[in-house]
Amino acid sequence: MSTILIKNAQIVTMNKSEEIIIGDILIENNIIKEIGQGLNEANAEKIIDAANRTVIPGFIQTHIHLCQTLFRGKADDLELMDWLRKRIWPLEAAHDEESIYYSAMLGIGELLESGTTTIVDMETVHHTEQAFRAIAETGIRAVSGKVMMDKGDQVPLPLQEKTAESIQQSVDLLEKWHQYDNGRIQYAFSPRFVVSCTETLLREVKTLSDHYNVRVHTHASENLGEIQIVEEETGMRNVVYLNHLGLANDRLILAHCIWLDEEEKRIIKEKGVHVSHCPGSNLKLASGIAETHYLLCDHASVSLGADGAPCNNNLDMFNEMRLAALIQKPIHGPTAMDARTVFRMATIGGAKAVGMEKEIGSIEVGKKADLAILNLNSFHTFPSYDVDPISRIVYSATRADVETTIIDGKILMENKIMKTVDKELVLKESNISIKRLLKRTNI
Amino acid sequence: MSTILIKNAQIVTMNKSEEIIIGDILIENNIIKEIGQGLNEANAEKIIDAANRTVIPGFIQTHIHLCQTLFRGKADDLELMDWLRKRIWPLEAAHDEESIYYSAMLGIGELLESGTTTIVDMETVHHTEQAFRAIAETGIRAVSGKVMMDKGDQVPLPLQEKTAESIQQSVDLLEKWHQYDNGRIQYAFSPRFVVSCTETLLREVKTLSDHYNVRVHTHASENLGEIQIVEEETGMRNVVYLNHLGLANDRLILAHCIWLDEEEKRIIKEKGVHVSHCPGSNLKLASGIAETHYLLCDHASVSLGADGAPCNNNLDMFNEMRLAALIQKPIHGPTAMDARTVFRMATIGGAKAVGMEKEIGSIEVGKKADLAILNLNSFHTFPSYDVDPISRIVYSATRADVETTIIDGKILMENKIMKTVDKELVLKESNISIKRLLKRTNI
Repeated sequence: MSTILIKNAQIVTMNKSEEIIIGDILIENNIIKEIGQGLNEANAEKIIDAANRTVIPGFIQTHIHLCQTLFRGKADDLELMDWLRKRIWPLEAAHDEESIYYSAMLGIGELLESGTTTIVDMETVHHTEQAFRAIAETGIRAVSGKVMMDKGDQVPLPLQEKTAESIQQSVDLLEKWHQYDNGRIQYAFSPRFVVSCTETLLREVKTLSDHYNVRVHTHASENLGEIQIVEEETGMRNVVYLNHLGLANDRLILAHCIWLDEEEKRIIKEKGVHVSHCPGSNLKLASGIAETHYLLCDHASVSLGADGAPCNNNLDMFNEMRLAALIQKPIHGPTAMDARTVFRMATIGGAKAVGMEKEIGSIEVGKKADLAILNLNSFHTFPSYDVDPISRIVYSATRADVETTIIDGKILMENKIMKTVDKELVLKESNISIKRLLKRTNI
Repeated sequence: MSTILIKNAQIVTMNKSEEIIIGDILIENNIIKEIGQGLNEANAEKIIDAANRTVIPGFIQTHIHLCQTLFRGKADDLELMDWLRKRIWPLEAAHDEESIYYSAMLGIGELLESGTTTIVDMETVHHTEQAFRAIAETGIRAVSGKVMMDKGDQVPLPLQEKTAESIQQSVDLLEKWHQYDNGRIQYAFSPRFVVSCTETLLREVKTLSDHYNVRVHTHASENLGEIQIVEEETGMRNVVYLNHLGLANDRLILAHCIWLDEEEKRIIKEKGVHVSHCPGSNLKLASGIAETHYLLCDHASVSLGADGAPCNNNLDMFNEMRLAALIQKPIHGPTAMDARTVFRMATIGGAKAVGMEKEIGSIEVGKKADLAILNLNSFHTFPSYDVDPISRIVYSATRADVETTIIDGKILMENKIMKTVDKELVLKESNISIKRLLKRTNI
């Protein structure tokens, strides 16, 4: 039995009363066994002195594309449909097994270093096995799946797939990876967006997601051009169409949801659909500013995600929290979207999106040990006297303030040393992979 | 004679053709003496191996309040006039000499650590001597001045000053500090904003700034409430009124400029007034989104500043660059405000604002050696292959990627070790100071 004792920390619990306490956390195997003061050191295999440190629930990002990490800086300053058609699709089409693996490793390295412990990840059409391999090896908690896209003339040939193939490959991956490593890895059916999926495919995804009781992860209402295409083809708006197919339920995660009409908002709220808000990506692609303030006031489920590296260009929850707070204020006033609201989205809100709010998203006895330890003793986070720690985290802290990351009771980064990702190797191989990949495109 | 040789760096010069080269930089005393490949090591006292490092011109922030750094986290989620009247003014009024000193030291520590080498700083009414002391000791390049506010019933008693006193104290500080340390420190007359200044004061500032040939640094058009007060009292909008008093010229730095009308924009452009764009502060205080894209298209002078810690809550140019790019895109499209435009604002644009574009703001022979050395070999800044370094800096890098900061030929941070700021002492004293200061307020 592995036991870790974290001593004398400031603990931002995010339990129901959002207590912030000073104390110890005892982790047994992958579970938080005890929280309190002066816990017995005798049986702890590993003791972490966290005096003057702040422990938070690991961040949960509900919309990530690990397969795009290699494309960071390769698609700046483009609009969504150009971004997809001129850059991202041709680049995804040129991926090979090794480039998918190193793209995932590079992204996971960045995520673990900046305190993200769970991701909802959408891969590309092929080689998804290699992303699962990287997820398995590194220890990050992930809900992932191969992208499904069985429609669309402008899609490059290597990404075009037949409906039956798309479904069969998804089910094969699910059968292999869902609930892997004691549930740390889960599968999500991942139709890209309505534009690239036939109705047959989406109906089958509905049936299968019910059968396997797994998440469906897709994009919706990100861009006005996308919405127009969906309306022309289906006569309905995105969320209405997904609801019409039976997909709108509490296992559906919708990335973006910028341009929702009233009916769509109502469906999202009533059916318990989860919105993944991606403020960095939404701004950089000029997609718009989502109505997260309204959605949260209406008690809809909203969490945060950085999307892919080429539209952000980081996978950094500190960036997303700051932006999520700041961009609502000129619209709704300075008291809207305060630090606690944002921190909730980044932690327990994400846990709800993946249906794990009883297991992760807060630091409570019985929950899985997914934590980050922050060192907030820096110029940019001081003074500390009489300042709400959550304000310090949301408005002042940065990725570099994360010292230690623990997932499922395993220390994956300790004092900034990565345990499961060979940084030097991954940086080197990521350059080799993108160079090889670019040769196969005409970008 | 002190000589530093930086070897084998990727140099983002920001010279006229914005060249990015691989080579060496030879610094003699405070001046860049030579740039080239394989420069002679024989006469260099100090050699910095910058292989796989990126050297950039130090960032220039044209709107900072060092005296507010202690108030970080003390005024979250408030609107400008409440923020001023309920928090910032009472807090500024409670400052003593020591708290001003440590507020400045804390801010300068943060700025040097994150690659900012020059600031335009506005202090409070009293104890400005202590801010100059901190600036002198730490080695940061600064254009600073005591705030002037001789009008306003809602201003706390200790901040109310008589016109003649305000002017005399400003002139005394100017006589002592302007051109200190070979011009590293300069004085700027700093009327807070039109709302808190009499016409007599502003007219005298105009005369004195002409006489001494120094900058005038003030706020304008930040907030609709402020504009309404100015219009009621003067019958004019901010910039029109400042122009009416003769203040609108190329020595005027105006922070914010969010709600400009066409006449104000015309004056700014024609008179060469410098706009300091503060995107983080403008969002956090819900002030609005400035029309920086239009101003830049119109060839107005626009630079960047983080404003004060309590309205941001960082003093971090990486945050401001990212925001400056992202927030314009949903309005003007994804190609607006690209990485190079933003990086220009952060470097050579700032140099123009302080009238030093021939001395700082780019890496060129004959210019002063104000530089930052970045380590971009991280997960979050990779791959590097075939990516524009300026995209990596603006969209991906963070404060923690700055390894070394050089100002006026002096190494003030080397491999993250601060040379002129005692970090442990400053953090400790900043908490002691804010605790003492809060006791004097009823916040």
